[in-house]
This record gives sequence, C-alpha cells and structure tokens, in this order.
Amino acid sequence: MRTHFCGLVDEALIGQTVTLCGWADVARDLGGLCFIDLRDHEGIVQIVAEPSDTAGNAAVVAAAAQVGYEDCLRITGTVRRRQSVNPKIKTGQVEVVATQIELLNKAEPLPFHAHENPGEDIRLKYRYLDLRTPEMQRMMRTRIQLVQSLRRWLDARGFQDIETPILTKATPEGARDFLVPARMHPGEFYALPQSPQLFKQILMMAGFDRYYQIARCFRDEALRADRQLEFTQLDMEFAWVSERDVQDTVEEMIRVVFREVMNVELANPFPRMTYEEAMRRYGSDKPDLRNAMEFTDIAELVKNCEFKVFTDWANHADGRVVALRTPGGAVFSRKQIDDYAAHAAKYGAKGLAWMKIDDLGKGREGINSPIAKFLDDATLDAILKATGAQTGDAIFFGAATYKSASDFMGALRLKLGKDLGLVSDAWTPLWITDFPMFEWDDEENRFVALHHPFTAPAVDSIEDLRANAKTAVSRGYDMVLNGNEIGGGSIRIHNSKMQSAVFELLGIGAEEAEGKFGFLLDALKYGAPPHGGIAFGIDRIAALMAGTESIRDVIAFPKTTTAQCLMTGAPSPVPDAQLAEVHVQVREKPVK
Amino acid sequence: MRTHFCGLVDEALIGQTVTLCGWADVARDLGGLCFIDLRDHEGIVQIVAEPSDTAGNAAVVAAAAQVGYEDCLRITGTVRRRQSVNPKIKTGQVEVVATQIELLNKAEPLPFHAHENPGEDIRLKYRYLDLRTPEMQRMMRTRIQLVQSLRRWLDARGFQDIETPILTKATPEGARDFLVPARMHPGEFYALPQSPQLFKQILMMAGFDRYYQIARCFRDEALRADRQLEFTQLDMEFAWVSERDVQDTVEEMIRVVFREVMNVELANPFPRMTYEEAMRRYGSDKPDLRNAMEFTDIAELVKNCEFKVFTDWANHADGRVVALRTPGGAVFSRKQIDDYAAHAAKYGAKGLAWMKIDDLGKGREGINSPIAKFLDDATLDAILKATGAQTGDAIFFGAATYKSASDFMGALRLKLGKDLGLVSDAWTPLWITDFPMFEWDDEENRFVALHHPFTAPAVDSIEDLRANAKTAVSRGYDMVLNGNEIGGGSIRIHNSKMQSAVFELLGIGAEEAEGKFGFLLDALKYGAPPHGGIAFGIDRIAALMAGTESIRDVIAFPKTTTAQCLMTGAPSPVPDAQLAEVHVQVREKPVK
Repeated sequence: MRTHFCGLVDEALIGQTVTLCGWADVARDLGGLCFIDLRDHEGIVQIVAEPSDTAGNAAVVAAAAQVGYEDCLRITGTVRRRQSVNPKIKTGQVEVVATQIELLNKAEPLPFHAHENPGEDIRLKYRYLDLRTPEMQRMMRTRIQLVQSLRRWLDARGFQDIETPILTKATPEGARDFLVPARMHPGEFYALPQSPQLFKQILMMAGFDRYYQIARCFRDEALRADRQLEFTQLDMEFAWVSERDVQDTVEEMIRVVFREVMNVELANPFPRMTYEEAMRRYGSDKPDLRNAMEFTDIAELVKNCEFKVFTDWANHADGRVVALRTPGGAVFSRKQIDDYAAHAAKYGAKGLAWMKIDDLGKGREGINSPIAKFLDDATLDAILKATGAQTGDAIFFGAATYKSASDFMGALRLKLGKDLGLVSDAWTPLWITDFPMFEWDDEENRFVALHHPFTAPAVDSIEDLRANAKTAVSRGYDMVLNGNEIGGGSIRIHNSKMQSAVFELLGIGAEEAEGKFGFLLDALKYGAPPHGGIAFGIDRIAALMAGTESIRDVIAFPKTTTAQCLMTGAPSPVPDAQLAEVHVQVREKPVK
Repeated sequence: MRTHFCGLVDEALIGQTVTLCGWADVARDLGGLCFIDLRDHEGIVQIVAEPSDTAGNAAVVAAAAQVGYEDCLRITGTVRRRQSVNPKIKTGQVEVVATQIELLNKAEPLPFHAHENPGEDIRLKYRYLDLRTPEMQRMMRTRIQLVQSLRRWLDARGFQDIETPILTKATPEGARDFLVPARMHPGEFYALPQSPQLFKQILMMAGFDRYYQIARCFRDEALRADRQLEFTQLDMEFAWVSERDVQDTVEEMIRVVFREVMNVELANPFPRMTYEEAMRRYGSDKPDLRNAMEFTDIAELVKNCEFKVFTDWANHADGRVVALRTPGGAVFSRKQIDDYAAHAAKYGAKGLAWMKIDDLGKGREGINSPIAKFLDDATLDAILKATGAQTGDAIFFGAATYKSASDFMGALRLKLGKDLGLVSDAWTPLWITDFPMFEWDDEENRFVALHHPFTAPAVDSIEDLRANAKTAVSRGYDMVLNGNEIGGGSIRIHNSKMQSAVFELLGIGAEEAEGKFGFLLDALKYGAPPHGGIAFGIDRIAALMAGTESIRDVIAFPKTTTAQCLMTGAPSPVPDAQLAEVHVQVREKPVK
C-alpha cells in the first residue's frame, strides 16, 4: 500500500514520487495552502497540498482541508526540498507535495491530546492512542531491543529456549496463586506459575544443560507502582555449575546487552558485596551505589552515654545504632528535618535523632542538635571522627533492632541522596552474595526461606545445617543495578535428603512436602545433576533502560494498581451458567 | 565442573586429560575391566576403568564397578584411540581412560527403561527421565531450532516482539475460556486468551506496524491427540497491507525456516487453491497434496440412474455424488472394503458404494460391484471414463449433502492413500483462499464465522454483505502443509460500522457487542489502519519437522487427553480457605 515510511523520507528521494501511509499528527489550513504532518512508527514528514494548475489538484486541496487529528491517510506525492528546514525531525530537509490524498479511516474527535498531560487512567483506557505517541513508542522499543539483544546472546551460546506450562500446580506461596477451575475435574484447580522454578530445575534433570525462557509469571497480590499481576522474567538454568559459572556468564550477558541497547559500558567485573556488608554499609540488600552516602555504626561509642534510646539499643543483642553523615545537610530547616523524620517513620522509625555541624572548628558550640546535651565531649568527638563529618553536614541517627534501623535509615539514605543531588548518573551494577539461608518469622513462629526453599545452603551436611540454621548462609545471589534487584538466583539443592531437610526446617511437613513437591523429591532421586540459575526482571530492566519510574510504560497493556485493564474492562462478571461448566460459583457475601 | 561435553570428545583430544559430567547410559563390568557409556545432551562417550599400576587406580575401578543406570557422574581421564571403533556414535573413534570417578548423585532403580517401550503414562509421570533419551532430545531440539529460526528471520525484518496479557477479558467463544477469579474484584473473573487476536489488532491501531509474538494460547475443550489446553502460536500482524503482502512475506519466512532447520527446499511460490476447489477436488480445506488421489464429481452422470441413493443426492440442491478412483484397489477383500466403509461411517457416511475394476477390457464383465446392476452401460462407461479408472483400480462412491460427502470421502481418501502407499515423501505447502465468510449453523439457527468475527469480507459495502451473506467470501487464508493447517489469517475489518454489521449478522446484538468488544469498536473509530495478519501453530509445525504424529513429543511438559499433568499432579484440590480469598466456592454436585 506504500512505497516508503513517513519517518524515512530523505533528501535522496527528492524529485521522486512516494506513497505514504500514516496518521495526521497535525493539519494546518492556511487559506488554501494545507500542511499535514503525517506520522508512522518511523517518524513524521510534512505533506503540502497547494493550489496549482495540476489536473485534479483541487480535489487534493479539498481533501487536505478536511483532515483532522489522527485521521488514517494514504498520500501520494513528490518529494522536494523544504524551504524552511525543521531540524527537530529526521525528515526536516524535505516535504512531500501531495498529488493524491486518500482518507483510509476518519478519526472521531479524540478523547485526549497527548500535549494536554492527560491522567494515566484515560491514557490506559485509550491505550492505542497513547501508544501512538513518539515517547511511548520509544519506551516500548527499548524493551523490544532489550529482549532481542538478550535472545541473540543466549541463542549464540547454546542456551535452549524451552516453554514451561502456564496451567500448573499450586506452589509454595500458594496464597498468592491465581487459580483456574478445571472443567474435566470438578472441584480441582490449576494454578498459574509464580515462576517456572520447579520446571527449570526438572529440565536440568531432563538433560537440557543450558535453559532459558522469557517467561510470563503471575502473582496475585496487591499491586504497587512497580508490580503487575503478570510480569516477565528472563529465566535461566545451568547444569553442572558453581555460583561463579552462573554469575560470570550472566554478568557478561548484561554487559553486552547494555552496550548494544544503551551504548553504556558497565563495570568489568561487577563489584561484589556480601549481604552482611550491604546491610552494614547501606542498610539494604540492594544498595544504590550511585549514592555514595554510607552508614557508620556507633553502638560501641554510645554504649554508656546518657541518651537512653542509644544506650538501650547499643546494649541490645539484636540492636543497632547507626549514624548517617549527610553532606550539606546543615542547611536543613526544622520543617525539613521533621519531613525526613516522617519519611523514616514510614519505614518503621520511632524517632529520628539529628545533629547539624554548623562549624566543626567550634566544637560543641558549632553543633546544633537536640541530643548533644546527652553526649559528653569524648563521645561527641568520637562520633564526629567516626562519621568523618565536616562543617555544613548533618548527621542523622537511627537506633532500633538491627533490621528496623537498617530499613528506615536505608530509606532515609535514598531520599537524602536524591534531595541533595548526591546521586551520580553512573550505572552501578553489583553482586550481593552470602545471603542468610533463613529468616525467622515472628508472626508465623518459624523459619522462612530468604530466597526460596530450593536454594542450596553453603554447607553440605544436613547435620550442620540443622545445628546452625539461624546463621546458615545460602548459595543465593542477587544482581543489583542502581538500587534495583534486577536478577536473583542460586545454586539449587540437588540432593533429595537435603531438600527434605530444608522443607522440614521451613515447617513444611513430610506429608505436605510430598503433596506439593513430591515430583521434585522423586526427580532428585534419579541422578539429578548439580545445577543453578537466575531470573531477571525484564519489566524492571526495560524501565531502567527507558528512563521511566513505572514498569507500566514498558508494558503494552498493563493493569492498574487496582488490577484492572481499563481498555478491555477485565476482570468482569461471568454468566453463572459458564461458572457451572467449570464447577464453581461466586460465594455469597458474608452476612455481618 | 567440566572441560568438555561427552558427546563432543573427538580424535583431536587424544592424549589430553578431560573432565566430563553426565549420566551413566550403560555400565558393564567385565571382571575388573569396567566400561561406562557417559551421556550428556551432546551425546555419549565410552569411559574405561581398567586395572593398572597407576596410583589410586584401584579406587577408580571400584567406583566404576558400583555405577548404575542414570547415576550422575563426574569423570576425569585421558582420551585415547579406541580399539574397536563404534560407528554408531559421534565419539566412536575414542574412549576416555578414567583416572577419577566422582559419584555426584546416585540414581535409584529406574521406574522404566526406554528400550522396554513403556506406556506414555509412565513416561509422562517421569518426564525428566523420558526427556533424557536421545530421541526426545532430538525432537525437542527441532522445536527449539524452529523457534530460533523464526525469531531470527522476524527480528532481521523489523517485526517487533510485543507481549500481550494472559489475564484478560472473556472473548467470543466464551464457553471455551479458562476463567480466573479476581481477588480484588469479588464475583469478577479474568479469562485466559484463546489468542492475542484483539490485542494484536489494537497494536496496529497503536502504531506498531509489524508485530509478532510467540504467544501462549488457551482453549478449554476436550483434548484430542493433537490438542493441548495450552498451545503456542507464532502470532503476526501487519498494518497497511493487502492479502498478498502478508502471504508473500510469511511464505518466504516458512521457506527460510524449512531450509535452515530441515535442509528442505519448499516450492516457490506455494501453490494456491480456493476453498471451493479444495473441497471439490479433495473434500477438505486442508488437502494433503502428497496424496495424488482426487475426487470426481459424477452427479451429472447419475442423475437418472436406477440407484436411488445416487439419484436422490444428484438431484438435491445441496447434494453431492463423488467418485474416488483408488489405484490398485481391486485387490481389496470384502473384509477390507467393510473396514473402509466403517472408517467412512466414523466421518458421517451412511454407506459406501464401491466398484473393483478387475479387467477394464472386459466391460461390465470385468467389473465387480454390487451397484453395477443399477447402472446402464452408458452410465458405467461414463463413470469409468470420468474417473480415468484402470484395470486393478477400485472406485469408491459417496453420496450425501455436499459437506457430508466431502467430509467422509475426504477422510477415506487420506486412509486409502496411506494404506496403499500413495503418499509421497515430498513437502507440499499450499495456500487456501476465498473461504466463505459465514457458515450456517443448523443447531444454533444462525450464521457462524468461518474464521473469526474480525475477518474482513471481500466486499466493501455493508449492503452487499447483508444481501449476499450466504455466498459472501472472506479475505481469510490458510497455509496448509502435508494436510495440516499450519497457519491461518486474514485481512481484518478496520471500519467500525462494518464490524458492527458483521457482529449483527453473527447474531451478536449491539448490547452484547458493546459489552464484549466495545473497546475494539471504539478503537476502530480513531483512524484504525487497514491491517491483517496470520497465526502459525508452533506445536504442529514442530511435530511435522520432528516427524512425530503427536505434539506431546515437542512440548516439554504436556498434559494428557484428560487434561492432567501426570508429573506434577495438576489440577488438584485447593483448600476452601484459599478459594474464599478469591470469592468462589466449589459447586455442590447436582443431586440426581
């Protein structure tokens, strides 16, 4: 239907006749002389309809005068050099003098215009109009290039792209499973996979050696800005490998992909940090290293001071007292500091102590702080020395359990870094390793797996693991980029007895384990090879590359935070007869 | 953990030390001299453990003697030339003399051995063992190569790989939708997509121009041998195109893919045939052209004969009388002919007339047929001439409605061709075009769409379509290969009014259309471009390439014909508390 793309008409075509298809981006009628900006996915070109002696020309001018926003057009014309060059567009040197204008499909008046900064709801309802905009096209293309680049790399290295089922069995965190009633098995249900974890492990036992899949995963939980009900992972698994085999391989892959898609050269090798170090220095297991601010632990310095909050936690077996030096923070107003305290409170802080260093040379006189009076000179001096504080800085203090203090001070560090412009524009990948095997869950009064129940412990002996469960380290690893966990993986358990022991430590009884994971425990008995892998969050990496905060910008048809598709209206009620065929009914609302 | 793959050890490595990982395919202990066939995904190599003076060698021999089927091993040794060459395997020139044998994971006694021809159920339950066999590896690899080759071709031509939602809204053939209860919206449901049809059309309206996706699709219906609850399509869509643009493009793609994966050169161009011609000549809209047998319509010849079945249908407005010349069929016994009649009956035949040509030169005397007595000489002669029958042939006759006669005679043609060895080993692609727009459904007393309700009619005017709905031809097309419909597509309706008119003709009222497809009707109003596309059945194409009848052989974890995964045990019951969270309950069984 066309000879060229709108966005690719260039000076080489001057004098030639072209036929283009596209949408009317703008149409201007200057009293008989009409201009149309015609747009396709490659870009925009200017069309001119001008009165002349050419036969049939009157029809062209008349047609051009009728053109409205987003009309779908097919235009034939001659390319000529443009008088007033437009340097903002690729085709800005040329224009097309129309000899024929065919209206393929008239557009009704639009529900919104992109330049009017419409709300996200209306953009999602008319997603097809939103996606036509160059900015959305750019972001979606970034994602497409990312996936292409990944596949190219993986295919070239013999990774085998294997599909695993979407209709499968309920998995460990069953409460988050989407359920699908089975027509042929009344009262039974399939579940949508939270990840292909068990299938990819089984594939290693099935002799596939190097597997990958760009896999759709599902998690039925409340949506946050960066979560969707369905999301996409690059899922990988390797047979007969150690941690470093996996890490070195995928690290190189990520470097290549960033080079190809972003023209960015990532560190080689990526820095490595243990979980313990990351929590100690940054209060996070996914530290954003673009932000140079670091924690200083001061429990030893304040064990005997007069500030009760400090001494309580400094002497607590599971306590932490942490100081965060904040360059330039001495300018903060009382209001600003209150706002930071409120921010920390959102992450669990009960209060936030602070200190402004107005003039380091003046000693105690130069310090502005409500807690200074509880600290003797030696303690004050030691804190200033330990944090490396300078005139003009502020210091914030957190005292709580190790986990809580790390959490809220970690959140504060991110906000301060952003507000003070202390975040570089570098790309900062790193590996986090040596995660704890288990976390104690106070509510459930049992261990929970920090990665997942199939992660191998760093010890080989079941007795060792049982004896030291609280401090045991796993063979899991995360890849972090700019403060986002973009990939997580581990070496898996390949021994049936060890797998049973871990289930037991996690409070999964033998019967439950058999019912849920019997096939895995079985499969491990027939010569399962040592294996491990990793999964990368494609939506998140694409969003990072596209420079957007929201993964919705890199998903063609995302759902809202209330789990709806505003375009199609999903989810929706279903006739009871249809439910009857799959043997379920809607529950009566509980009577209060 | 290894230096080489088992299957890739070759003469270039003679004299070198290698470390291999794999499974014990066979282990033979010849009194102190042990042989192990070690297998990985690349193939098999022979390991030898032999008594010698080498230090530590006793341990190696002892370890080798303990090896059992499918034990997972890591073996280090020296490559040497083999005394008795094994030409059956790639590594047959060499063997590895073990210096270290590490048992990574012992295998329990196997539930089955591949060479014992186990039933499919046990193979599916222990899928990981079945997939380890070289034959399953070969078939799965064929699929992997197919998908890789397709993607490479598509990516190189600027097709954009875009994911569409799995959790979406119920679609036209709603009764076959899988339903997923929505946690956040009590009483509402998502549906799994039967195809991304509407989303890919929307993507064209959203400016993506050339789209593809290797898409998972879902259909909740009784499983046949070649169906799965979930299946995989290569889904494609093009903006601003005509039929031939789509067909020429994807035909070239299929040619390239067959060349790359199979080293097969398909016809260029593919033959083309209208739906009418295909039904007339082969009684099928997916004729297998490897089978040269063709129908002869003889209604005109038998209109006035004395065989009532023939005359009834020959004079019926919607009747058909068809003859199928069967080369070599004169040798059929009465029992064989009865079996063919039974086969035709499965496809709707009420009876099957036949004629054996024992000696064409003898006229009526040379004909063996229970119906010959009802045919006068002229009619008999005309039938023999029209079919081109020769001595030694049989002719089978079908008389019924056009559709029914075509169906059962088409099925008979396939079976006869197979049984008589009349099917060539060529690859026979073709296009079927000019499908009827609608089929009349007697049960529902309304038109149904032969493709789907979004297929454009060949006429542009709504009035024309309404006036001639019964005979209207659509802009749909199928790609057929060796008697399988491997791809189907169409030019779509891009005009909102035409789409509404087609819904109406299909008995979908304005309100229902608005509820189900309102977003499509809306989208068509904002300058939707003319567009069309196609979808290919990846499972079927992979099965054809792999040379297997069953698509289960090219799906890693297929379900049975009773919709179960025998490995994981899905589907399965779910605690009522979990159902309560998504606001459904299992229906009470109806009391009889």
